[in-house]
Amino acid sequence: MTSERTKVRRLPERGAYDSATIHEILDQNFVCHVGFNAEHGPVVLPTLFGREDDVIYLHGSAGAHMLREMKTEVPVSVAVTSVDGIVAARSHFHHSINYRSVVIFGNAAEVADVGEKLHALEILTNHVMPGRWDEARQPNTAEFTQTLVLRLNLDEASAKVRTGPPHDEAEDMDLDTWAGIVPMRVVAGEPIPDPDMKADAPLPPSVRATLDRWSSD
Amino acid sequence: MTSERTKVRRLPERGAYDSATIHEILDQNFVCHVGFNAEHGPVVLPTLFGREDDVIYLHGSAGAHMLREMKTEVPVSVAVTSVDGIVAARSHFHHSINYRSVVIFGNAAEVADVGEKLHALEILTNHVMPGRWDEARQPNTAEFTQTLVLRLNLDEASAKVRTGPPHDEAEDMDLDTWAGIVPMRVVAGEPIPDPDMKADAPLPPSVRATLDRWSSD
Repeated sequence: MTSERTKVRRLPERGAYDSATIHEILDQNFVCHVGFNAEHGPVVLPTLFGREDDVIYLHGSAGAHMLREMKTEVPVSVAVTSVDGIVAARSHFHHSINYRSVVIFGNAAEVADVGEKLHALEILTNHVMPGRWDEARQPNTAEFTQTLVLRLNLDEASAKVRTGPPHDEAEDMDLDTWAGIVPMRVVAGEPIPDPDMKADAPLPPSVRATLDRWSSD
Repeated sequence: MTSERTKVRRLPERGAYDSATIHEILDQNFVCHVGFNAEHGPVVLPTLFGREDDVIYLHGSAGAHMLREMKTEVPVSVAVTSVDGIVAARSHFHHSINYRSVVIFGNAAEVADVGEKLHALEILTNHVMPGRWDEARQPNTAEFTQTLVLRLNLDEASAKVRTGPPHDEAEDMDLDTWAGIVPMRVVAGEPIPDPDMKADAPLPPSVRATLDRWSSD
């Protein structure tokens, strides 16, 4: 999964290239930031994604600017980032963030095959809410046609991970400055049923799985 | 703050261009995703930022690939995204995410002036941890020289916000499918003092402010 452009250039000891690490970071997130070159210059936009094996899928409205620009095998870069904590050091220079990120390079291509496209929508849906695909109404033909799905291979992907305490200079170790980590994470709150829902409808498995996944415990 | 490229093209009713909205979203986050064109194509990388007035500052090692590429007034795009919840609809087509995002276009330029550069580092530091600048050791000359700071104006910035319940089709309203929102947010955990800290050092104001800001209550 390496190429000249996937090499982690800055602090290479933080780089990881194995599939397991890359897949784990991708599977812990569902929002990515996609970069591509529009006519007027670089554009970065947030969007959802799903992963299966060594492929990620993106989707959106067939009318969307981003997807129209990207459907014809244009080069893109996709970044996925988990922020795990703020690292407070004794000097400003050594302040940092604990994080896990994946950066992917490649050519996004439209998924034209109907079977793969439907499968990709299932992957995307279940990536955001595990098991949701079996609970909600499947797309009808009009909805399916209005949706564009893109495939991006993970052939050129790398991960970068920072963990642990600050790395301070020896001469700063006697300072009284507080140093350490403020851990950060994403948590789910109490589900809010749609106002038009029947009262007391039980939470379906996908919502319970989502609460487990982003549990505050 | 509008231009042809800042116009929110997809679902324009979700677009917002006022400074107050844009500043609020930027101030609630400290990680952005920066996109630029490298020789081999588009690159998106996560990095920290700080905001003051209508400017954001980015920083990094003077040796870093990203910053070397960007210091000479190259066009960049920067996206900042808060994920506020997963929106579960009765049909897959209407599944969505509640979010607040800002997308900026512009030319990043190196901050060469020593006074502005030091000020920018203070802005960046306090953007991540309110008040931290006064607590830790200031950069020495070597550290200052090794750090590159970039300025990006918010002249071309737009916000996009989705809130509220799913928007289902009328014909789906009788389905038994659970619909609603699973709220998501970022919270800070119990601070972890550096193992080399003196025992029982009190938490400084910056850490207490960070815990308040990302409180789980």
